[in-house]
Amino acid sequence: MNLEDMELEDIAQEISVLHKGKKYSDIKSILTEINPADIAALFDEFSVEEQILFFRLLPKEEAAETFVELDNDTQEAIISAFSDAELREVLDELYLDDTVDIIEEMPATIVKRILRNTDSQTRASINTLLKYPEDSAGSIMTPEFVDLKKNNTVEDAFKRIRRTGVDKETIYTCYVTDESRRLIGVTTVKELLLHDYDDLIESFMETNTIYVNTHDDKEIAVQLFDKYNFLALPVVDMENRLVGIITVDDAMDVLQEENTEDIHKMNAIVRTSEKPYLKIGVFETFRSRLPWLMLLMVSATFTGMIITAFEDKLSVLIILTSFIPMLMDTGGNSGGQASVTIIRALSLNEIDLGDIFKVIWKEIRVGICCGLSLAAVNFAKIWLVDRLLLGTEGITLKVDLVISLTLVIEIIFAKIVGCTLPIFAKKLKFDPAVMSSPFITTIVDALSLLIYFWLATAILHI
Amino acid sequence: MNLEDMELEDIAQEISVLHKGKKYSDIKSILTEINPADIAALFDEFSVEEQILFFRLLPKEEAAETFVELDNDTQEAIISAFSDAELREVLDELYLDDTVDIIEEMPATIVKRILRNTDSQTRASINTLLKYPEDSAGSIMTPEFVDLKKNNTVEDAFKRIRRTGVDKETIYTCYVTDESRRLIGVTTVKELLLHDYDDLIESFMETNTIYVNTHDDKEIAVQLFDKYNFLALPVVDMENRLVGIITVDDAMDVLQEENTEDIHKMNAIVRTSEKPYLKIGVFETFRSRLPWLMLLMVSATFTGMIITAFEDKLSVLIILTSFIPMLMDTGGNSGGQASVTIIRALSLNEIDLGDIFKVIWKEIRVGICCGLSLAAVNFAKIWLVDRLLLGTEGITLKVDLVISLTLVIEIIFAKIVGCTLPIFAKKLKFDPAVMSSPFITTIVDALSLLIYFWLATAILHI
Repeated sequence: MNLEDMELEDIAQEISVLHKGKKYSDIKSILTEINPADIAALFDEFSVEEQILFFRLLPKEEAAETFVELDNDTQEAIISAFSDAELREVLDELYLDDTVDIIEEMPATIVKRILRNTDSQTRASINTLLKYPEDSAGSIMTPEFVDLKKNNTVEDAFKRIRRTGVDKETIYTCYVTDESRRLIGVTTVKELLLHDYDDLIESFMETNTIYVNTHDDKEIAVQLFDKYNFLALPVVDMENRLVGIITVDDAMDVLQEENTEDIHKMNAIVRTSEKPYLKIGVFETFRSRLPWLMLLMVSATFTGMIITAFEDKLSVLIILTSFIPMLMDTGGNSGGQASVTIIRALSLNEIDLGDIFKVIWKEIRVGICCGLSLAAVNFAKIWLVDRLLLGTEGITLKVDLVISLTLVIEIIFAKIVGCTLPIFAKKLKFDPAVMSSPFITTIVDALSLLIYFWLATAILHI
Repeated sequence: MNLEDMELEDIAQEISVLHKGKKYSDIKSILTEINPADIAALFDEFSVEEQILFFRLLPKEEAAETFVELDNDTQEAIISAFSDAELREVLDELYLDDTVDIIEEMPATIVKRILRNTDSQTRASINTLLKYPEDSAGSIMTPEFVDLKKNNTVEDAFKRIRRTGVDKETIYTCYVTDESRRLIGVTTVKELLLHDYDDLIESFMETNTIYVNTHDDKEIAVQLFDKYNFLALPVVDMENRLVGIITVDDAMDVLQEENTEDIHKMNAIVRTSEKPYLKIGVFETFRSRLPWLMLLMVSATFTGMIITAFEDKLSVLIILTSFIPMLMDTGGNSGGQASVTIIRALSLNEIDLGDIFKVIWKEIRVGICCGLSLAAVNFAKIWLVDRLLLGTEGITLKVDLVISLTLVIEIIFAKIVGCTLPIFAKKLKFDPAVMSSPFITTIVDALSLLIYFWLATAILHI
């Protein structure tokens, strides 16, 4: 059962009533029927005291699963309210990568308490994981995986899984390592189930294993999931020793996170936080939006200078001014279309640097088609609506021609600028996503004005 | 081993040399070392004749896995070259949902050949799957899953998986159905492995099963994966009978597809094809870009009308014209930032319709911060650079004030418009993604010009 917001509110109401009547066992049975992700959503409806009270009602395993889904403030409140014994119970049930994620968001005092309540081996693993760079594959892996030896039989493998599997985040992909813990092969529980009990792992394991290094960018890891449809991906250290795995659910989270980051970058936002919108403060939102707004505002100085340079001509034929917004917006939109298409295609690996001429040639043709169509409609519209219907002064056939010709040329230029800048950015190892609409618009604006005034000078002799 | 483009080219070269020397068994051993997704990428380097030749060298199972990864043109060429016996061999190895995906892209003659070469039961399943609406959960599910009965023991379950599992896309999540095939529970191979051989499935199966209906939007299914970290999600029909499952790899593909669609929509592109950039023709690209460009161009008529109305005033103080592009771009960028942030937050379910006042209040405060900062910098810049450094004529303290005040007010308005329109769109059951930068820009342009001219009239008395 997937709970919609409405149902969640109903359940919250029901629990509130039960709470007033102190019917805790009823609350407990309601909560145990709900998926941990939904319990976390439900908790938003309650006060901190209630959250702590209800959390204590959860069975051990469900408590840990719910804890991972809660937001950082609630997690902090619950840990603060917990005795060391209670804290240990939750920590015991958590997967290591989740513990590390939580530690990264908690204040120092809480971190100390968490570390004090884990055994020394776990503490060592946590410390290792905390050292990986923020965007690295190491930072999203878990060191809890099933490892087998090549001379294990299928029966050995199942015994090992039955004995140790309960604590592993996934058991379905099993990794085969040699004596120095180097990764030499991989197999799956499906393969194990389809082989005889006394078959040796090495007789059927896959040896062309795809893996990432702990220091690889996590984006590379996620692209491999996307390409090869893995459930888990092994992570090795500099000496090729298997140190962890990334599971598909974490890969999916990173994928969503990277998509959000790209979308924000494409719209002149510096992403400073991974928190959901309503949890980010006004000042932090302000900080994430100001830099690009400021830069783009200052760079619009150039368009201002172009207009100032043509001021005398504009004052002769002031009607030309009223088409500046339309020309600028259409140029910006045309360039923006090309740039986001290319940025997305680059990030999905549909195109690479070598395709630049194919891309430009295609965009030129698309630009010609779009330019001609828009110019034709615009030409007719100016004549029929602006001149004949509205009787706007100063519109002549030549003026109409200047505006429509500007459209054709600026759209072709906009498409070329829009498709080349992201590719250049990638070549220069910048993130192509910043070369998107806002940035393209600023450049295309200046280009459009130059084309406009040049055509006006040539055709209208002003 | 993950193959980079460089390595792929090296391997392609090597295979070409072997091909000239007719060393087919060497080619075969190279290909069997490579992951099917990489073989498909490698095939791009070869002619159609070579593709068909090399494809025939692949072992049965690898051939099927590679076939799924090939692009439609290559698939078509290979099927056309195949004898019925060869075709049947590949089809036998394909998962049903992949067969359906391929059928949807093939011309009628090929589809007929495919259907002729499948057994009647498979043909019936294919026909059922083909009937689901394009964006429905049914269209991305596979009917091949492991189903158990509640009075099965763990041992029964393993026997069943060993017997039928080889043809299932995933065996790790097992579904428990009653006599009328209604879904009553779910368990996993991990659970099975951790229980005793004679335990009954019903004693430990999870009964609060989360599922989707065949006719639900596939986006809903994908959101459930994102929220609950599933490996597979059951799909039921109108009578609650289990008819298929969606696997996490397909969910990930849909997620990427939806993200691409959102990014395109946010930039005034109508997505007409799911093909990669270079495979989409010029005319189709043109068709996907024209509608919004045209609509936005025509709606810029309003900004033109506003300027025409204030033409007389502009001609008195032509310097005001040169700041129009900067004011328009900054307004557009500010509104665009707010709108994409909200669109993304809506699509990640971080906010819903009920949060509208919280959102507006936050955006107003962010708008005030951004507006004041930009106005301060702009005020100083106009005075120091435009007036003192460049000596631009006509700039007075009052003109500078009008421009900077316009910035503050337009940015606040832009943030409000940018955050409310996507939420309204959602309320009216439109896709919020179309209420993004290009659309917001057009509205904010008109607003900004009105504020600008109104302030100019009031302060400069023109």
